[in-house]
This record gives sequence, structure tokens and C-alpha cells, in this order.
Amino acid sequence: MKHTLVATMENHPSTFNKVLSLFRCRGFAIDSLAVGHTDVPNIMRLTIVVDGSRTAVEQVVKQLYKIIEVRKVSDVSEDQTVRRELALIKVTSKPATRGEIIQLADIYRARVVDVGPNSLIVEVTGTPDKVDSAVQVLRGFGIKEMVRTGVVAMVRGAHVPQENEKVRELTA
Amino acid sequence: MKHTLVATMENHPSTFNKVLSLFRCRGFAIDSLAVGHTDVPNIMRLTIVVDGSRTAVEQVVKQLYKIIEVRKVSDVSEDQTVRRELALIKVTSKPATRGEIIQLADIYRARVVDVGPNSLIVEVTGTPDKVDSAVQVLRGFGIKEMVRTGVVAMVRGAHVPQENEKVRELTA
Repeated sequence: MKHTLVATMENHPSTFNKVLSLFRCRGFAIDSLAVGHTDVPNIMRLTIVVDGSRTAVEQVVKQLYKIIEVRKVSDVSEDQTVRRELALIKVTSKPATRGEIIQLADIYRARVVDVGPNSLIVEVTGTPDKVDSAVQVLRGFGIKEMVRTGVVAMVRGAHVPQENEKVRELTA
Repeated sequence: MKHTLVATMENHPSTFNKVLSLFRCRGFAIDSLAVGHTDVPNIMRLTIVVDGSRTAVEQVVKQLYKIIEVRKVSDVSEDQTVRRELALIKVTSKPATRGEIIQLADIYRARVVDVGPNSLIVEVTGTPDKVDSAVQVLRGFGIKEMVRTGVVAMVRGAHVPQENEKVRELTA
């Protein structure tokens, strides 16, 4: 089963290694990984999608908490979340097919962000399923190159992760 | 100086560790990291933004090539690229401020993707500068939580990285 884990951590060069080592040791297949800044300086937020059993994921979460630079970890797989991903897709385009590609991009609320002599770059944003579907449709024209950011997830509504949740959970 | 490196690699649990170890060993500060699927099964594309001297980055690129699972590495910092990032920002909102937040989101072509009793989740897509600017504007209302995917980059126009570039460059 696929699990989406969200972790906030201090930005030290060694932190990401420590975190990824835990997943490597257990042989988890990494489906996607996104690390970016939060609104707190020097605090990064990592979103990782992995394939593994619930027990194995629970154990990794516990071990992540032992890394001193890790502030908070949650498995949001079963929460109500907003999940988003961004993809840039370079599609082969000839003058005859350009219009059709732009029309299809419109259906996905995607944007054409670059036009070359034989290609277009399309930017698609949405749930992983929506991105998959757009890729499927554009594949017919020929995909020269593609990059996906990896999924990021945020719990809907008023829930906000508290830094002291870590302490509470560890002492619970 | 900030460098944006793009690498395609086989998806083994150990590959990401090997790659990140190289950056850790040299003490690079990681600004963002994004790993997602490409259109080739089991081949992932990693985009990493690091702060370091040009010489240090060139050395890391050479060492990345020595990792057997790495197919292709490029420093695209000086290329003409499309650079994109996605952010989800949970903003404090009261009935009185909701309209204003939605209006500001519109200016950034951002989308409101969730509405809670005291918060909105805004999805912003664009260059890192544009995302920074939107964050700055929304900070005035109070940011409860934020996640950024990290930057992905694609060279504009007809250029497409060839898998055999690695072989060519290594034997050059």
C-alpha cells in the first residue's frame, strides 16, 4: 500500500541522508520525494510517498522521531488531504498538431509555458491521478522529456501540526 | 551561488542515498529537492538546488556519473530553462478577510483548493520568485502551514537530454 509521510526537519546536509537511510534499510520503494522550504527559516518540509506495509511504515515513523533534527512526522495517508503535484512535459509538436495539444492542455487546465520549433512544454498541476491522465493523453503526440515534482500533501481544514506533538506522542 | 542539477536515475532504494551522500560529504546546503517519475518506467528524475562554488558542483557532477544507477546529470543553472515550483499555503481567514485573500490569490493566478472555518488552502504555481512573492503577501494574514514541492527545471526549446550523453561525456 502507498503511504504519504510528511516530516518537518532542520536543514542540515546530513538530515536528508539520515532520513533516507531509514527507508533504504527497510527496502522501501520510493514513489516520490519533495523537499522544500516552509515559512519558518531553516525548517524544511519533506513529503515522501513509499510503498510498504502499515507496520513497516509505523516503525519508520518511530525511528524518524529519533533523529534529532526531525521536528514532526505524520502519516497522512488516511487523512482528508489536498494532494498536489506539478509536471513539466515536453511534447513533440508540429504545426499541424500544435492546436490540438493546446486544446487538450486547456481541458486539464494546463498551461503551455514554452514553444520550440518542434516541441511545446506543458505545465500540468493537480492530483497525481490527474497528472497521470494528462501524461497518458499527451503520450500520443510523443513525449520528449518529463519531470514531476513529486506529491505534496496538506491536511484539509483547521488541523495544523504542532511542533510539540512530537513530545506528546513520544511520552504518550 | 545556487546551482540547479538535474539527474535521471534508476529507482533503487539505495540510489537516492548514494546521491545525497555526495552532497552531504561536501557540506552543500540543499535548497530544494524534487524526485518524481519520468515517462520511462522505473526511471526517476531528481532536481536538486544547492548552494556551492562552481568547482565544487562540477566535482559532484563527475562523481554522480560514477554511480551506476545514474543515467544522466546536467547543471542547468546557466541554460535557458522553465523553472517551476508548487506551494500549498494554509492561510488564516475570517469571514471579513476571505474576500481579500481570494482577490490576492487571483492576482497570482493561484487557486483556493480548500476552505475551512478559519483557514483557506491556496495553491500557487510558478517560478520560485513568484511563489516567494505570494508567500510574502499572504504572510500578512497569518500562515498556519506551508509546503513547497521544490523547484523542477526543464531546458527550453528543442534540447532533449540523451541517455548516451553520459557515455559520450565520460569518454570525451
